[in-house]
Amino acid sequence: MSKNLTKRSEDYSKWYNELVGKADLAENSGVRGCMVIKPYGYAIWEKMQAALDHMFKETGHENAYFPLFIPKSYFSKEASHVDGFAKECAVVTHYRLKNAEDGSGVIVDPDAKLEEELIVRPTSETIIWDTYRKWIQSYRDLPLLINQWANVVRWEMRTRLFLRTSEFLWQEGHTAHATKEEAIAEAEQMMEVYATFAQEFMAVPVIKGLKTESERFAGALETYCIEAMMQDGKALQAGTSHFLGQNFAKAFDVTYASKEGKQEHVWATSWGVSTRLMGALIMTHSDDNGLVLPPKLAPIQVVIVPIYKGIEQLDTIAEKVAPLVAALKSKGISVKFDQRDTHKPGFKFNEYELKGVPVRLAIGQRDLDNNTFEVARRDTLTKETVASDQVVGHIEQLLAVIQDNLYQRALEFRDTHITPVDTYEEFKTVLNEKGGFVSAHWDGTIETEAKIKDATKASIRCIPIDVKEEQGRCILTGKPSSKRVLFAKAY
Amino acid sequence: MSKNLTKRSEDYSKWYNELVGKADLAENSGVRGCMVIKPYGYAIWEKMQAALDHMFKETGHENAYFPLFIPKSYFSKEASHVDGFAKECAVVTHYRLKNAEDGSGVIVDPDAKLEEELIVRPTSETIIWDTYRKWIQSYRDLPLLINQWANVVRWEMRTRLFLRTSEFLWQEGHTAHATKEEAIAEAEQMMEVYATFAQEFMAVPVIKGLKTESERFAGALETYCIEAMMQDGKALQAGTSHFLGQNFAKAFDVTYASKEGKQEHVWATSWGVSTRLMGALIMTHSDDNGLVLPPKLAPIQVVIVPIYKGIEQLDTIAEKVAPLVAALKSKGISVKFDQRDTHKPGFKFNEYELKGVPVRLAIGQRDLDNNTFEVARRDTLTKETVASDQVVGHIEQLLAVIQDNLYQRALEFRDTHITPVDTYEEFKTVLNEKGGFVSAHWDGTIETEAKIKDATKASIRCIPIDVKEEQGRCILTGKPSSKRVLFAKAY
Repeated sequence: MSKNLTKRSEDYSKWYNELVGKADLAENSGVRGCMVIKPYGYAIWEKMQAALDHMFKETGHENAYFPLFIPKSYFSKEASHVDGFAKECAVVTHYRLKNAEDGSGVIVDPDAKLEEELIVRPTSETIIWDTYRKWIQSYRDLPLLINQWANVVRWEMRTRLFLRTSEFLWQEGHTAHATKEEAIAEAEQMMEVYATFAQEFMAVPVIKGLKTESERFAGALETYCIEAMMQDGKALQAGTSHFLGQNFAKAFDVTYASKEGKQEHVWATSWGVSTRLMGALIMTHSDDNGLVLPPKLAPIQVVIVPIYKGIEQLDTIAEKVAPLVAALKSKGISVKFDQRDTHKPGFKFNEYELKGVPVRLAIGQRDLDNNTFEVARRDTLTKETVASDQVVGHIEQLLAVIQDNLYQRALEFRDTHITPVDTYEEFKTVLNEKGGFVSAHWDGTIETEAKIKDATKASIRCIPIDVKEEQGRCILTGKPSSKRVLFAKAY
Repeated sequence: MSKNLTKRSEDYSKWYNELVGKADLAENSGVRGCMVIKPYGYAIWEKMQAALDHMFKETGHENAYFPLFIPKSYFSKEASHVDGFAKECAVVTHYRLKNAEDGSGVIVDPDAKLEEELIVRPTSETIIWDTYRKWIQSYRDLPLLINQWANVVRWEMRTRLFLRTSEFLWQEGHTAHATKEEAIAEAEQMMEVYATFAQEFMAVPVIKGLKTESERFAGALETYCIEAMMQDGKALQAGTSHFLGQNFAKAFDVTYASKEGKQEHVWATSWGVSTRLMGALIMTHSDDNGLVLPPKLAPIQVVIVPIYKGIEQLDTIAEKVAPLVAALKSKGISVKFDQRDTHKPGFKFNEYELKGVPVRLAIGQRDLDNNTFEVARRDTLTKETVASDQVVGHIEQLLAVIQDNLYQRALEFRDTHITPVDTYEEFKTVLNEKGGFVSAHWDGTIETEAKIKDATKASIRCIPIDVKEEQGRCILTGKPSSKRVLFAKAY
């Protein structure tokens, strides 16, 4: 298998698109802006889902399922939400097709027009809060901690596989609380859960922070986020968690009787991550040879390729490999022994490199003679020879080492791509020549933020949670500022 | 918690609707025909999904994800499929809303009309086979064994929670094969997988069979099915597996180069089960006290209710219960210790009975004194006293006993509700007075089948796989018949 992959340094965007295709992760479908997630890509997503779902349940959340469709009128109930979400969306207007009278095929039946149009959910706050009104009566019903795994649709004009598609898969948590403090604590907790997941499973370091007012979720009082840095110096928002105040409770009239018997509006959060994480995963670790996967999310962690002449030698190798496969499986390591006789070892090496399998074992005559395996790492592309009786322990350790190495490598890249600047000239130079996060003072106004974005395409990615108080002056207006924020061009 | 559940003998349909609501399984939403699956109901569905997904993967299938939307023209490509599916469906015609000029709210933007309407998938054969054309070139690409977990929409005029909803959740397998024989074997295998799942996990006995031509899936050459019998004597189709021949391969031009280098059309199957299974589960086992769940699908398998006066006694009980909870969890048994002080034991007993928790433990002062627990079974509503040091082993065994008892009970009911008849009079009498499956001779024609259905509302549920050859005469026309088929009124 020849890889023929464009180099990142030549054209990062082209490299990404080719990689997603060649590594069998996803492809465009016949439907504008909607992707097909191929089995190998979906297997990675399933591993992400399993890890996240476990973390959600450990923090007390339950899954449920709400309708795909939302009546148009629901969107009008929360004023800022409608502006943010009820615009570019898929609208269902009819519920029946019929055969055209001229025999030309099927047409929409004009008699089957819906009284009220239905919107394919772009996010589910409205339909869920319409439901919560029935579920919440008393303080005893709180907190209500619910998550949903679902598909959502936001009509996008310019789409890119995983990063921006009209339909995407995600999870959306929607919680209801008796107090403001509890809701804020929940929103913060979920930001932490996302950060832990990104770092421990995806090996992607992230900066935890707050969005500025203009970058907040439509309907939120505060948006917490995790921001990652891609290899091309562009930032990627990897997850958001919103403190919604009482906005949705008021819009949908959700109140509870407090212990003191008073009727109070409920406090809300929502939080989500999507198949966009696949884009972050790919762009953080992969190289010019293809995908690089952290072991914890790799569908195949170890591949074994036999190097043989003739069926007899393959049989000998298979005999040698069988107990190794069993031993690895018993340790919960996913392993594939690729015995296909339709492809040469070189083809297979390329294929698994392209698909990012963390560890590759090869075994040929010399290994049989010496009782060894050749062990290759995908992250460093290095090889070593390991004695058979040590190979299981070696691999177990190696998977942990690779997971950690990927994280450390990405962390180093990220940390060297946070550049403090104090003037607007410096700001522009760093943005254009180095990229990455630019740490700068800002006067706190929407106007300045917009001017900088218009001029440089860099937005404020976040106000980091652990930001230090520091007196300074806004890079654009020179007005006083008490802390630095992170700017970047972003996906 | 008072149950106030209508009795099955009074009004089975009302009993079902009330039970689904009171046991917190699902409810109707503000969107016509679409349900909200509540956390407790969804937890059962998740257990079904996990078991099925494991079985699919064990039989070599991989998951993938295809678009929610299907261009209208795709449906026209397979003639019988369009008649079956492209009729009552949700049609997306526009992709944008805008603020009404008169300030009355949001309206559909007439400028944002799609060139071609999109159908919300009622099933995905067309979009998937449009994709397979790109994936399949050579015999080396076959078999292609893919499954998708997804939501689908079929516009239904009369809906019932789980049994018939406009949107439902399901899995749909879509496989491609080099030969007819292989495709038929796959379709049969998946019917077997469904039957095994129904029997071993749901404790629901099913009859495996073939659909008659008029009951087949639109586009299939053969539809295999599993049919279950509910407590009211009505049948429920619990899963179908279709041999699609080369219909979709021809419609979407999917060919492969055989080993001999010839271009051949691919052979196809598709198979699915849905949240309808929840309806089958509920209606097979539950009683006038509420839900009855087989242990393998119960979100909570064991609940422990403390009976106490004052916080001190609760503390003593909690201390006694802690090691039991730990021991049960270590055996993979899901257990809940309900310490809520807002509700009395009687309320809790009722609640867990309503929710079908298989085993309930109670512990009060007398149990503390005697070092015992009171163990109650949900299936038989019987109680016994068990010594503390034996309770873990007892529960472990009991869960298996309950799982088996539910299956045997349902099997006995089902078997006593298969009635052979030889005349049309007898047929009608059994249908009206006893219900269940009626085993009768049929002349094999669509016309007779339709006449019987029009007159009695009974359809042919299936021609059982293990049917015996037997000479007889059609109950309606008296024409010769070589085997009996199963008729029933059905959900």
